[in-house]
Amino acid sequence: MNQKEIKKIVSEMTLEEKAGMCSGKDNWHLKSVERLGIPEVMVSDGPHGLRKQEDKTDHLGLNGSKRAVCFPAACASACSFDRGLLQELGEAIGEECQAEDVSIVLGPAVNIKRSPLCGRNFEYFSEDPYLASELAKSYISGVQSKQVGTSIKHFAVNNQEFRRMSCSSELDERALREIYLSAFEAAVKEAKPWTVMCSYNRINGVYASENKKLLSDILRDEWGFDGYVMSDWGAVNDRVEGLKAGLDLEMPGSSGVNDEEIIKAVESGRLDESVLDTAVERILSRIFAYWENKTNTVFPYKEHHELAKRIELESAVLLKNEDQLLPLKEGKKIALIGQFAKEPRYQGGGSSHINPYQVKGAWELLNGVSYAMGYTLDDSAAEELAEEAVALAAKSDAAVIFAGLPDAYESEGYDRRHMRLPEQQNHLIERVSRVQPNLVIVLHNGSPVEMPWEKQAKAILEMYLGGEAVGEAAADLLFGKANPSGKLAETFPLRLEDNPSYLNFPGDGNTVRYQEGIFVGYRYYDSKKMAVRYPFGHGLSYTTFEYSGLKLSSDQIKDTDCLTVTFKVKNTGAAAGKEIVQLYVSDHTGSAVRPEKELRHFAKVALSPGEEKTIKMELTKRAFAWYHPERKDWYAASGEYEILIGSSSREIRLSKTVCMENTSGAVQRIEANTVIGDIVANPQAEKVFSKYMDQLWKAFGKPKSDEMTRQIILSLPLRAVRSFCYLPSEELNILLNALNAAVNETARSGR
Amino acid sequence: MNQKEIKKIVSEMTLEEKAGMCSGKDNWHLKSVERLGIPEVMVSDGPHGLRKQEDKTDHLGLNGSKRAVCFPAACASACSFDRGLLQELGEAIGEECQAEDVSIVLGPAVNIKRSPLCGRNFEYFSEDPYLASELAKSYISGVQSKQVGTSIKHFAVNNQEFRRMSCSSELDERALREIYLSAFEAAVKEAKPWTVMCSYNRINGVYASENKKLLSDILRDEWGFDGYVMSDWGAVNDRVEGLKAGLDLEMPGSSGVNDEEIIKAVESGRLDESVLDTAVERILSRIFAYWENKTNTVFPYKEHHELAKRIELESAVLLKNEDQLLPLKEGKKIALIGQFAKEPRYQGGGSSHINPYQVKGAWELLNGVSYAMGYTLDDSAAEELAEEAVALAAKSDAAVIFAGLPDAYESEGYDRRHMRLPEQQNHLIERVSRVQPNLVIVLHNGSPVEMPWEKQAKAILEMYLGGEAVGEAAADLLFGKANPSGKLAETFPLRLEDNPSYLNFPGDGNTVRYQEGIFVGYRYYDSKKMAVRYPFGHGLSYTTFEYSGLKLSSDQIKDTDCLTVTFKVKNTGAAAGKEIVQLYVSDHTGSAVRPEKELRHFAKVALSPGEEKTIKMELTKRAFAWYHPERKDWYAASGEYEILIGSSSREIRLSKTVCMENTSGAVQRIEANTVIGDIVANPQAEKVFSKYMDQLWKAFGKPKSDEMTRQIILSLPLRAVRSFCYLPSEELNILLNALNAAVNETARSGR
Repeated sequence: MNQKEIKKIVSEMTLEEKAGMCSGKDNWHLKSVERLGIPEVMVSDGPHGLRKQEDKTDHLGLNGSKRAVCFPAACASACSFDRGLLQELGEAIGEECQAEDVSIVLGPAVNIKRSPLCGRNFEYFSEDPYLASELAKSYISGVQSKQVGTSIKHFAVNNQEFRRMSCSSELDERALREIYLSAFEAAVKEAKPWTVMCSYNRINGVYASENKKLLSDILRDEWGFDGYVMSDWGAVNDRVEGLKAGLDLEMPGSSGVNDEEIIKAVESGRLDESVLDTAVERILSRIFAYWENKTNTVFPYKEHHELAKRIELESAVLLKNEDQLLPLKEGKKIALIGQFAKEPRYQGGGSSHINPYQVKGAWELLNGVSYAMGYTLDDSAAEELAEEAVALAAKSDAAVIFAGLPDAYESEGYDRRHMRLPEQQNHLIERVSRVQPNLVIVLHNGSPVEMPWEKQAKAILEMYLGGEAVGEAAADLLFGKANPSGKLAETFPLRLEDNPSYLNFPGDGNTVRYQEGIFVGYRYYDSKKMAVRYPFGHGLSYTTFEYSGLKLSSDQIKDTDCLTVTFKVKNTGAAAGKEIVQLYVSDHTGSAVRPEKELRHFAKVALSPGEEKTIKMELTKRAFAWYHPERKDWYAASGEYEILIGSSSREIRLSKTVCMENTSGAVQRIEANTVIGDIVANPQAEKVFSKYMDQLWKAFGKPKSDEMTRQIILSLPLRAVRSFCYLPSEELNILLNALNAAVNETARSGR
Repeated sequence: MNQKEIKKIVSEMTLEEKAGMCSGKDNWHLKSVERLGIPEVMVSDGPHGLRKQEDKTDHLGLNGSKRAVCFPAACASACSFDRGLLQELGEAIGEECQAEDVSIVLGPAVNIKRSPLCGRNFEYFSEDPYLASELAKSYISGVQSKQVGTSIKHFAVNNQEFRRMSCSSELDERALREIYLSAFEAAVKEAKPWTVMCSYNRINGVYASENKKLLSDILRDEWGFDGYVMSDWGAVNDRVEGLKAGLDLEMPGSSGVNDEEIIKAVESGRLDESVLDTAVERILSRIFAYWENKTNTVFPYKEHHELAKRIELESAVLLKNEDQLLPLKEGKKIALIGQFAKEPRYQGGGSSHINPYQVKGAWELLNGVSYAMGYTLDDSAAEELAEEAVALAAKSDAAVIFAGLPDAYESEGYDRRHMRLPEQQNHLIERVSRVQPNLVIVLHNGSPVEMPWEKQAKAILEMYLGGEAVGEAAADLLFGKANPSGKLAETFPLRLEDNPSYLNFPGDGNTVRYQEGIFVGYRYYDSKKMAVRYPFGHGLSYTTFEYSGLKLSSDQIKDTDCLTVTFKVKNTGAAAGKEIVQLYVSDHTGSAVRPEKELRHFAKVALSPGEEKTIKMELTKRAFAWYHPERKDWYAASGEYEILIGSSSREIRLSKTVCMENTSGAVQRIEANTVIGDIVANPQAEKVFSKYMDQLWKAFGKPKSDEMTRQIILSLPLRAVRSFCYLPSEELNILLNALNAAVNETARSGR
């Protein structure tokens, strides 16, 4: 249905019908208007599987839902760094939506992992906005290729569960733009999600659900979003203000209370009816886009289960592998320890909770291994179980402990208080390590944990919440049927206190202050030169890779140019494997406070033993830029930038410097309070100012070699010449005009 | 002269005379008006000695000044933690002012040491506002007891030299109040300085010199300041706005330009003449207060020199003393190494620079020690000098290296770029340590340095910039004629990167963002549980002290009560000594983000061997309180606080808990967006809400043991009952009224 036809339908709707169209019929359905042929469509929780509820419905994963394949949660799949794989995942979810008559899947979730404590981190991709946005883009493209919509969420700056419905996230414009909105920006601009879901919280005091700056100025006017915005479930504060700000659909509805508010507002003139019409048009156009392309798919459980396994195989991160303990050799006596070896933890709690198709523990899939339970999730029977496990480990050739966080430790709705595993598990690992040096730890968790036993474990395999096939993936990876190729999408700090948000998380109840600004995750740890447990981008393989031949298309570019970066990666080991290569940019211009480096590109490269490939990456201005609040635009200063190619954020293999020229022109305007250092930095202005400079040096009575005097003169505001050079105010104005003329001359001549 | 007489004089002044009175005649003098008997008075730089210039004058210590005793700079004297000693210092300076016809000494400087890099840190007391304010109070009382005024400076939030005349210090209200203004507050309220000097910088965008909030609302209206405010030299931006905001005196004047502006503003009506009159009254009343009490003192150089030595003896900090290497034993072969052993660095550069009375190096004062120069301050001849020093050290029983920062490293006008000693000195120490295990390092520096050689030195004696008698003090301390008793007034971090301001110092040129907020110095290191080189409050002695018998006057107090804390300290060693005992308070109420602990009291106790004394300290509400921006007042929540008695911030010897009851009454008002958790925390409101609570649990369909559901319900805003309990808006209003009535009932009944 085209825009004109939609407008026609809207024009035939009553005010009550239009107001009603802007909120859900129930938890999962939009309203129909039979007389106008508007069908009832459904939305459904996701995003790593479909949580379609049929009978008693709620929005928090509390009640049952239809069986679906539970794919790895975003915390896991992000570690694949694989755009193609996320596209496949999206396609699978899209097929399931078509099969289950769902018009929109509620995801992907791209909120930034600001603190490892956020209860919902397992649903989010990364601490890095570029990685999050790239993966979201692929996922959205995948889903929407099946004529089903997505709802990228939670827009925006929703990075904790604590008082998420009322707390105000207080942050500066650079942090907002460079970190929190960046995670959405490319995905919205390039993958064009059908809908965006606004978050519960306030941003600098204004509810996301009525935040015009976010929902209209940035989302629509700057980024060109043309779908509809829906509220997170219950996120509406003032419905009419929300509509005005750009919130089209309230979910799940308010028993008609807010529909009534809309009607009253239109009738009283508080709300322009055209605003309502626009919202309804946006909603209808997505309803029909879905409805007119509905297919009668039956979705292939088994194939999707295989995909879930494949994603997890690509996502598991081998954190450590001393003495090449992994892969485990066949024929050795292996002790599997831990309840998670039988019953893996593979997903988190809340709205994303899936009723899975099929789950098997690694133990079930492995022959000839022995087993001890080791611990319970309720911390009971600790001594007895530990003793049994220790005895088993002692008489084995190697022990594999499946450890991780119990369900209650991480969930939608509340945050963790600490970053530790249950004490019982830490003790167990400690005790087993004393009798068995060949110790492997397999981790099931949605967010980093402290590892007091890290030195005692030879190998650590981070599986995250790896979906329903996580046990199958673990079995394959442990025994070398597959080669680990995931890398961390977040930093594992040594201690919770090291995290940049530590002093300001989760805030005081009304507000949470993002004082670390742009220094989130590795941007902080690297800039502060801190030791970490495992750095962002880290992950090992059963093979090795060599980097060489870094070339830049030019070592001198303008900010309007595209820089092409090429380099080679070679598999120098004996196993086939995949390497995630990472490109970081480091700003050496000194134009602003910047992180030590920032991820600007990545690729995942499959290589047979001995094989070498050339990688090509393209960078445009944005890869070098920061958000300039005064210019209200992205800005890359003239000067030097270093291009860093790394196998992780801390293991930089190749680097080269490029010199950038900013072409956006000088905006400098010299005023009475401009400091002299800034004036003389401009060659033309320096000429104009030189005689006053001499007078200043004379006034201070010191030779020009005196550093203190130099620094003091350079930091004087221009107005100081009034006192130091006895310049009357009128002459200061003449000087100002001359200086500005000189600066403009410089700008025109392109210097 | 009384207020009435002053008003009469002002009424007889012409507009031109009044405008003229509001700026200096030259660098150091105010104007006289002979016909009305207004004398010409002088102000002079300080504060750790008098820098009275007579001929060619400037305000930056560039040209010569009259000889005066150079006392230890504030970086050193702060380490005495001795109020009485600072009072004596003030009295001495006051006497010198009287002898030299100076009406106001420009100090003390209480700016907070936010970053170790600030070029002017050596003039400031501490990273802790309580310590800074206590010492300033004593100093001001001392000076003003001689009928000479002080000018507490630089008001305010001036914590770097980089672009100090234009940069805006951007900070939140709590950091402003709890840290930066606190350093001034008690000193202004209790010691009543005659004048306050405003700083160069802007604060949240507004120049200090025209900052009404600071100069009038807080300084005069809140704190009751009744003297005059003068500008730092050249700090005036808009003279008329400055007058309106509360800046009375512009220094050093503007060649009449700004006097003319004032006249024009009065004539045009832009400035109310009464504002000008008030400023002139304030200035005149301090001129006459001085003039009418002038004495004809001749100041005793020798006695003041002895005082300078005594202060430094109390201020030097023994950072480390392995194997009791110090004091050095007589009769051993001692090698003194380093140019500073002959020519100590004892003061910093800039406006505080004194032309000293008498300086001797330690070497001159010690018999039978050998000497090697070891290094130069210009980094020349490194190899040759080091070899000579190593050879000397190798054949001695112990080596004492006098190291430190050259003049050019720290000065008014610019900041340090790093925290290192000159490489030549670090290499020298490293090389000497390889041949001589009995190695003592004596440090002369105005701010912390990194110590890559810390493990190789058995003893480290921090002398800071200890004034003209620093060499004499060093000689006495090294050989045990005096017992060190200073403690650090600032943290020595391991690395510059550890400092909380690291990512935001010195800002981008226009602004510097105080993102660490209240977490300055030990407040940050302790809260983040970071290792440091030496903690705040640390300092050793040649004897030992035992703490015991902590008692609180009550374990249950109201915030209107005074808590009396007593405990005992005993000298358990063989030498007489002094111990600085520190009281910290730790807030366990959870009412706000607070530092791990904060210094709230201290005392310095002299003890003979075996002697024990009982220390008594009194704490009022402010010792427990934080600044509550919404209440616009200091606030101490009800709940538990821990009283910690420490020999340093990291060595807590005694502790006890006190329970506080806040009596300021509930200000809670329940609104539609108040979260349910806050409502049910009030016992009366909980009763009113209980039936809705049950309905909410029912709506979620889970047993009350379910933690996720509990957390989600508690964080719902009240408005959510509209959807979850199907409550129409009118009934929500009725419920709101009932809840607020219940809350008010609770407040009235004092619960």
